[in-house]
Amino acid sequence: MNEKDIVIGIDLGGTTTKFGMYTSEGTCLETWTIPTDTNEAGKQIVPNMCKSILSTLVDKNYTSKQLLGIGIGAPGVVSQEEGTVKNAFNLGWAKTQDIRKTFQQYDLDVPLYLTNDANCAAYGEASVSHASNIVFITLGTGVGGGVVINNSILTGTANSAGEIGHLHSSLNYGFTCTCGNENCLETVASATGIVNVAYVESKTFMEDSKLQKAIENDEEITAKLVFDLVKENDKLACKGVDVITYDLGVACANIANIVNPESVIIGGGVSQAGNILLHKIVSVFEKVAFPLVRQSTDIKLATLGNDAGITGAAQMVIQGEAKYDENF
Amino acid sequence: MNEKDIVIGIDLGGTTTKFGMYTSEGTCLETWTIPTDTNEAGKQIVPNMCKSILSTLVDKNYTSKQLLGIGIGAPGVVSQEEGTVKNAFNLGWAKTQDIRKTFQQYDLDVPLYLTNDANCAAYGEASVSHASNIVFITLGTGVGGGVVINNSILTGTANSAGEIGHLHSSLNYGFTCTCGNENCLETVASATGIVNVAYVESKTFMEDSKLQKAIENDEEITAKLVFDLVKENDKLACKGVDVITYDLGVACANIANIVNPESVIIGGGVSQAGNILLHKIVSVFEKVAFPLVRQSTDIKLATLGNDAGITGAAQMVIQGEAKYDENF
Repeated sequence: MNEKDIVIGIDLGGTTTKFGMYTSEGTCLETWTIPTDTNEAGKQIVPNMCKSILSTLVDKNYTSKQLLGIGIGAPGVVSQEEGTVKNAFNLGWAKTQDIRKTFQQYDLDVPLYLTNDANCAAYGEASVSHASNIVFITLGTGVGGGVVINNSILTGTANSAGEIGHLHSSLNYGFTCTCGNENCLETVASATGIVNVAYVESKTFMEDSKLQKAIENDEEITAKLVFDLVKENDKLACKGVDVITYDLGVACANIANIVNPESVIIGGGVSQAGNILLHKIVSVFEKVAFPLVRQSTDIKLATLGNDAGITGAAQMVIQGEAKYDENF
Repeated sequence: MNEKDIVIGIDLGGTTTKFGMYTSEGTCLETWTIPTDTNEAGKQIVPNMCKSILSTLVDKNYTSKQLLGIGIGAPGVVSQEEGTVKNAFNLGWAKTQDIRKTFQQYDLDVPLYLTNDANCAAYGEASVSHASNIVFITLGTGVGGGVVINNSILTGTANSAGEIGHLHSSLNYGFTCTCGNENCLETVASATGIVNVAYVESKTFMEDSKLQKAIENDEEITAKLVFDLVKENDKLACKGVDVITYDLGVACANIANIVNPESVIIGGGVSQAGNILLHKIVSVFEKVAFPLVRQSTDIKLATLGNDAGITGAAQMVIQGEAKYDENF
């Protein structure tokens, strides 16, 4: 190992913080996780991150001088320029956090590449797709997104590009979103949204359905249960999934009509439903997207799973992605 | 004037071809138009263009050696790389046209910058806005669009980025679009679409309305008439315009949530309706766009009018925009 040959990628989540140690060629040497301590307004989160990096470097016989840089994907509104994260409420961070300063206090004064967690996963998926232009949609508790153009993360004029979860759904279920608006895509197409839709549809559903019975018996309803029941051809489950995949298909078409990326990549926990989800989305996409866009933009499932964040974070360092913020 | 100090920008339309002669600093020296001869499958269009440039150069005491380059915005599917235009049916061009070759045959073997007409207008509007990131929507007979990111036209993976006219409308009027799909934005928000909507709405409209009477009397209905009647508070006209501005407001929000540009700029003939149109679009945008996007992306009217195309075409040459095709 030469000097400056180690890269750290970090995926900062509300429950765990995931780390990857990579060579400057992107080979993964080690991954590990620590709990994310959201107590006391999350004031230990960044110090814990620093300590964990320092101790792992020692364990592996590296020094911080060998670090080419550290990449971090974080929830909330992230500023590469300022080295800060704000509005990351699920971390307990109501106030703006100066990440760069804390890293410097821990003698980790190396190039720091910060981006939003969904952007970071998008960058990871783009790098393994060997694609320079992709849009990533993550379907989890919420719906997030990231846009990669010319190998750079599109941040937008206020770090708010890729807000796919807040595309306006044409379904008009009237659910209020965490952002304060009504009928955002996230309110129907997230794991929570799928459950919301199932409850609403069950109220007027008259056919035989296991999902219907589970709702009537006050059992716990999850997105996974709904998709599992689709495999059994449960009619209410199918109806619910048709509703959300319609909306996702329209969203993919609208995104692809604007950006015409090589692919729209669908990840996040809900994407574990796999081809059931994908095929339904694609069938709507093919009806709705502009013909040339339909022929040239692929809709596909993500491949990195939980490693998308740390991969993207490391790739930001390797590809010198900090430049994006100066350009946009 | 030094050598290579003259730039020609061309806006190729179905009725007229508009030319602008500029300095390499972008100062306009001359504009002129010639009819677009769509006879015989439009075979004279490019030769006429070349002859008109050559004769104007002579008139103004310039030589073709002084040309820094020629920019062209053309309808259809345009390839900068190949120097071709295809699918420009309103020019009579059913077959692919090798524009670059014809220019070379006329001894105009200078750098040629080709893009789609809506992209070209977008580039013109971006240049006068001094903005590096904008989305342009042109509301004319159809609805077109262009996306400018980091001062470059976003072409997409198959030259199909910015197909704003084919965003899926949530209105479900069921109009079939020229692209073959149903419910594209263009089917309701173009000049033709506004008239379509007025006819459909009039069928169930029961209140007193001049527009309603004009329709009943088989008078000619135009988008301009509808907007003129909105100024008189005609109820059917207001209803029609509310419908289309709702859809445009949602489209602007969805676009801005994905790209978060500095502004979404609305141009084309319909935009001459001015603030009546703009204010209604903005009021929907503000309800629907993600809060941070709403605060950071402006919705505004275009300022260049019919000169957007020639300005953008000249700016492509001045800013060396041919690079975009290699990058995307």
